[in-house]
Amino acid sequence: MNKIGERTIVFKSAPFIAGNGGVGGKEEKCGPVGDCFDVFLKDDLWGEKSWELTEKKMHIRAIVDALNAAGLYTKDIDVMLGGDLLNQIITAGYSARELGIPFLGLYGACSTMSESLAIGAMAVDGGYAKNVVCAASSHFATAERQFRYPLELGTPKTPTSQHTATASGATVISMKPINPGAHPRITCATIGRVVDYGIKDVNNMGAAMAPAAAETLFTHFYDTKRKPSYYDLILSGDLGIFGKEILIRMAEKEKMDLSLNYTDCGVEIYKGMDNMYCGGSGCGLSALMLNKYYIPKMREGKLKRILFMATGALMSPTSSLQGESIPAIAHAISIEMENVKWNI
Amino acid sequence: MNKIGERTIVFKSAPFIAGNGGVGGKEEKCGPVGDCFDVFLKDDLWGEKSWELTEKKMHIRAIVDALNAAGLYTKDIDVMLGGDLLNQIITAGYSARELGIPFLGLYGACSTMSESLAIGAMAVDGGYAKNVVCAASSHFATAERQFRYPLELGTPKTPTSQHTATASGATVISMKPINPGAHPRITCATIGRVVDYGIKDVNNMGAAMAPAAAETLFTHFYDTKRKPSYYDLILSGDLGIFGKEILIRMAEKEKMDLSLNYTDCGVEIYKGMDNMYCGGSGCGLSALMLNKYYIPKMREGKLKRILFMATGALMSPTSSLQGESIPAIAHAISIEMENVKWNI
Repeated sequence: MNKIGERTIVFKSAPFIAGNGGVGGKEEKCGPVGDCFDVFLKDDLWGEKSWELTEKKMHIRAIVDALNAAGLYTKDIDVMLGGDLLNQIITAGYSARELGIPFLGLYGACSTMSESLAIGAMAVDGGYAKNVVCAASSHFATAERQFRYPLELGTPKTPTSQHTATASGATVISMKPINPGAHPRITCATIGRVVDYGIKDVNNMGAAMAPAAAETLFTHFYDTKRKPSYYDLILSGDLGIFGKEILIRMAEKEKMDLSLNYTDCGVEIYKGMDNMYCGGSGCGLSALMLNKYYIPKMREGKLKRILFMATGALMSPTSSLQGESIPAIAHAISIEMENVKWNI
Repeated sequence: MNKIGERTIVFKSAPFIAGNGGVGGKEEKCGPVGDCFDVFLKDDLWGEKSWELTEKKMHIRAIVDALNAAGLYTKDIDVMLGGDLLNQIITAGYSARELGIPFLGLYGACSTMSESLAIGAMAVDGGYAKNVVCAASSHFATAERQFRYPLELGTPKTPTSQHTATASGATVISMKPINPGAHPRITCATIGRVVDYGIKDVNNMGAAMAPAAAETLFTHFYDTKRKPSYYDLILSGDLGIFGKEILIRMAEKEKMDLSLNYTDCGVEIYKGMDNMYCGGSGCGLSALMLNKYYIPKMREGKLKRILFMATGALMSPTSSLQGESIPAIAHAISIEMENVKWNI
């Protein structure tokens, strides 16, 4: 078995992250890490006639840039995995039509990047694919239109709300990278369970998702017998300021110190910016931060081991209207510069 | 590599289909194969207060029945894969919350059952899981509410339209089945590409999906060097009467005879019934037919080799309103009573 403990799958060949791509929105570009987003939107529409078409254009651009970085063409890619927040994941579906790559559509809300990396690494490690591309995208305006209110209404936000990022990120996972140099590798993944603590406030997603993140994180350390200090960085997807605080406190109760090497992509992307409430969200956010900010840091030698854990809230407007609480999920992906010898 | 040709992945261990479950709606029960649906709805709500909750109840029941048939408990299942047609796949997401099984959510519209079998077989064959459960569901009333018009309007249907089935189906895939006897096995899978011939009529999904089915089918035969006659049955998901006819004609042009051993789940489920237009659709339909009608026939020795190819239309109401055409996809899964020796 390529599995340790209850829920952690191991990739003995440690597939390589051969290329990365990403596109940031105008606001993301203005943020503290905006310098890393070399491809970005000058306005919300980026030359398209609808925000949905813009999101598709971003998704495709992130994938094409990841392929270019890996030195590959679409024909070299065995399968394209991923999704977005839109109903029927139209961003990913229409992108797959344009690119012509075999496609497996995923929906994990904002956990999609983690989910696609887990399945993608399995496909490459298992010998079912030489190269796969994983991608996730979101757009502030398409998400507001679908999940919340028409932008024209100017509906005020509550203090715990998060700002859906306009962002795309894509990762090429390869059996053998073409380009020379050291590439980060995916060594294991802990698959999440759906956790629901009964939160019903859709403007408080951090609180809804933190328990799912905690459950996956604790399981990951239990399964792998690693400690938080094993990683240079533990990175959650988009818990935001409030959700991050909850996760740290939940970990404290388990005698686990996350104060030194843990942060959240949703906190980092808009740090110090006004009107961003509890930070960013959206499945493209963690995809962009991973692919354009953190993975490059690994390539530069500044980080050697990271645990990437995108978190998703799985409710829908219909389930919320029907009075349901918010179920959440998180998958943890271990990305390291060296392969690991598993004792199994 | 565990791959042949351009797009077909092979499962050298040929994971076993260890258990199946399914739930049919009231109308499905009245159809020509209704006798096979031992669990069925007596009315649209099945004791719940909303159709969405009914769909969740069906999804869970199909999974629990599949687990029971396989002699397994939820704790034995490494991962639950699948989805449904509802926005944010709430049926699958909330079911995963109730069942507590690690969850990977998929969206492939009506191709979801094929997609989950492909990824599920990969997880088991690759040694990442001992047992997985794959499931897909749909409900006539939740689909009408979301994709079409309020039922109360009584909007008339066009002749090429299809009736979304109230149906759930679940498959347990195991490394080693507990129960004795011969179990069907998953030997290979051809991953689909998104194909779009420009159809914009959402009441003509058969025509939109047939080209995607044809593309996957031809690729499958090309990759595996098999002929249609290799299979006792080639089974598409829900092309319906018109889509089935288109696929047969597209195959004829390639000098491929599908007249003898090919049919479509959407054609069979309502055969001879009134007001069903071009037949059934919905991702639960092919899941139900596969798990409660065709797999049992394999267990009885009446079918030895089937090619199951669920087809999905990947548009959304938003993309249709914005004038986009309907992109479609199909994945083909080879299910056989014997393992196959691959020449790779």
